[in-house]
Amino acid sequence: MTRRDHPRPDVTPVDHAELALLLEVASTPKPGNVDRHREYDDLRFEHFLAGAVGSRPGLRMAADADADADADADADADADATPGLGDAFERAVRGMSQQDGDNTQFGCLLLLCPLVRAAATDRLSPSGVASVAEATTVEDAAAFYRAFDHVDVAVGDPPPEADALDVRRGGDAVPTLRDRGLTLADVMALSADRDGNAHEWATGFERTFRAADRVLNDEGPVSDRLARVFLALLAERPDTLVAVEHGEERARAVSRRAAAVQGDLDAAADLADAFHEEGINPGTTADLVAAAAFVALERGVRV
Amino acid sequence: MTRRDHPRPDVTPVDHAELALLLEVASTPKPGNVDRHREYDDLRFEHFLAGAVGSRPGLRMAADADADADADADADADADATPGLGDAFERAVRGMSQQDGDNTQFGCLLLLCPLVRAAATDRLSPSGVASVAEATTVEDAAAFYRAFDHVDVAVGDPPPEADALDVRRGGDAVPTLRDRGLTLADVMALSADRDGNAHEWATGFERTFRAADRVLNDEGPVSDRLARVFLALLAERPDTLVAVEHGEERARAVSRRAAAVQGDLDAAADLADAFHEEGINPGTTADLVAAAAFVALERGVRV
Repeated sequence: MTRRDHPRPDVTPVDHAELALLLEVASTPKPGNVDRHREYDDLRFEHFLAGAVGSRPGLRMAADADADADADADADADADATPGLGDAFERAVRGMSQQDGDNTQFGCLLLLCPLVRAAATDRLSPSGVASVAEATTVEDAAAFYRAFDHVDVAVGDPPPEADALDVRRGGDAVPTLRDRGLTLADVMALSADRDGNAHEWATGFERTFRAADRVLNDEGPVSDRLARVFLALLAERPDTLVAVEHGEERARAVSRRAAAVQGDLDAAADLADAFHEEGINPGTTADLVAAAAFVALERGVRV
Repeated sequence: MTRRDHPRPDVTPVDHAELALLLEVASTPKPGNVDRHREYDDLRFEHFLAGAVGSRPGLRMAADADADADADADADADADATPGLGDAFERAVRGMSQQDGDNTQFGCLLLLCPLVRAAATDRLSPSGVASVAEATTVEDAAAFYRAFDHVDVAVGDPPPEADALDVRRGGDAVPTLRDRGLTLADVMALSADRDGNAHEWATGFERTFRAADRVLNDEGPVSDRLARVFLALLAERPDTLVAVEHGEERARAVSRRAAAVQGDLDAAADLADAFHEEGINPGTTADLVAAAAFVALERGVRV
C-alpha cells in the first residue's frame, strides 16, 4: 500500500517503531514478560513507557538515511551524512535507559533499528533489511558494543575462542573488533545460533516477517493479536534468553508449555502467573513481537 | 533544577508531554476512565497509546517557540516563525485522532499545549503559562474551533447568547470569532465557569500546579501517585464532563464518592468498577492528571 492509502498517512516509521514498543508491553498476557497486567517492583510497566519515549532520538537517527525525505530530522543528526546504524542503536539504548528500570527494550531496539532504516528507505522486506544489515561497518559494531555500557543486558558466555568479543566487555572490546575488521553484521552472524535477535539479523528477519503476517491476518484488537503471536513464536522455538538464564532443556520445556496453551489467552493468563512465579522471562520472544508489531503497523494494521 | 541536573537530562518538553499522556492512561485505578486495567470495546487502551504518539507533531509545534533552542524541530514547522499555539493544538488533535477510538486525549492536549510552550521558553509557572495564554490571538481561537472538526468531543450546550460560538460548529464558527475579535484566551474565559479545562487556562493552571506538587511530594511509583492525585482532584471539585453528561447534582455525588475512598487505591478499584457500570466518565479530571504529570516530569519526578 502507498503511504497515502495508509490508515495513518502521516505517521512516520519512527512513530511506528515507538508505537510498536508501546503495543508490545501493553499486550497481555505475554507469559513471563512485563505487560499491562504484570510487573515487578524494580521493573514496572511505566519504565517501559519511559523507555519507548526515550528511545526516539536514536530511532530518528535510524530513520535518517535520507535527510531530504525525513520530516522528523533531528539536530543530533548531521544533515549531510547518514548516521551509522550502530550509532543510532547506541543513542536509542542510551535514551531508553533514562528511567529507573534499567534494561527495558535493548533487544527490541536491536531489531527495530535496521527495520526502521529499511522502512525509511522503502525496502521493508526480508531482502531489504538484509541489505541494511550487510551495509553495516566496523564502526557500527563498535557502537553496538558501546551500547552495553549503558545498561545491564543478560547474555550468555561466549565460546572460549570468542572471549575477547564478549559483549559484556562493552566499549573495551572495540580494539579487538577493529583488529579483526568485524562489522555489526559479522558480530551478529557469530551469535546467530545462540541468540534469537542475532538470528533475525542473519536471516533477513524471517521470523519477524512471518509473525507480522500472522498479526495482519488475525482479527480483533492489535494487543490481543500480539499476545497470540507471542504464544505462537514461543511455542515454535525455545527462547534464547530463557536458555541463557535457565539452560536449554528448561527453554524447550517453556516452549512446550506455551504450545499447550494453543493460543487461548485465558489459559495464557494462568501460564503468565506460573512463569512469573518461576522467574521465567522469555524476553527474546517479546523482542520479536515488537519487531513484528512494527512491520504490521507499517503494512497498515489498524489500531 | 537545571536541565543538566535532571534525571533525564536530554529529554525534551515534547517527550515529557507524550510521556505524561502515556502515564495518565497507564495509571490505575482512575475510576470511570480508561486505564491499564479497564477499557471499552470501542475505546481501548491501545487507542490512547496511538493517540499519544500521534499527537507529537502538534506538541513539537507547541514547543517550537524558539527554533534555535529546540533540538526537536520539525519540517512541518516554519523555522522562521513561531507556530501559533492554536495551530499546534489543532495539529496535535489531528494526529491524536488517527486511531479507531476517536477522541482519546483532546482535553489533555488543550492543557498540554500551553504548558509545553511555557516549558520550552523557560517559564513553566502559573504566571508563565498565564502569559502564554494571554499571548494567544484570534487565529489561535480559529484553529481551536477547527480542531473540533477532527473528533467528537462531548460538550454542553452554550448559553443562548453564545450559540454562534458553540464549539460543535467547529470551523463554521470562525467568522463569528473574527467579527468579535475573540482570542483563544477570550474563548476559554467564556467557558471557565462550566469547563474544567477552560478554568485552568483562565487561572494560570492553578489546580494543575497544585496537583503537580502533590505528585512530587508523594512517594512510590509515579503511576500510583497519579491515581491518588486523580482521586484528590475529583474529590475536591465536581468533574465538568460528568456534569455535562449527567447533570451537576450527579457530578457532585460522584465527587463525594471519590472523597469517601480517601485515597485508598484498593477501594478506588471498586469505585472504578461501579463508575464503569454506571457509565460515569470523569474525563476532565483525567485531563488535569495528564497536565499535572507533565509539570511533575519537568520538575524532575523520577520514572
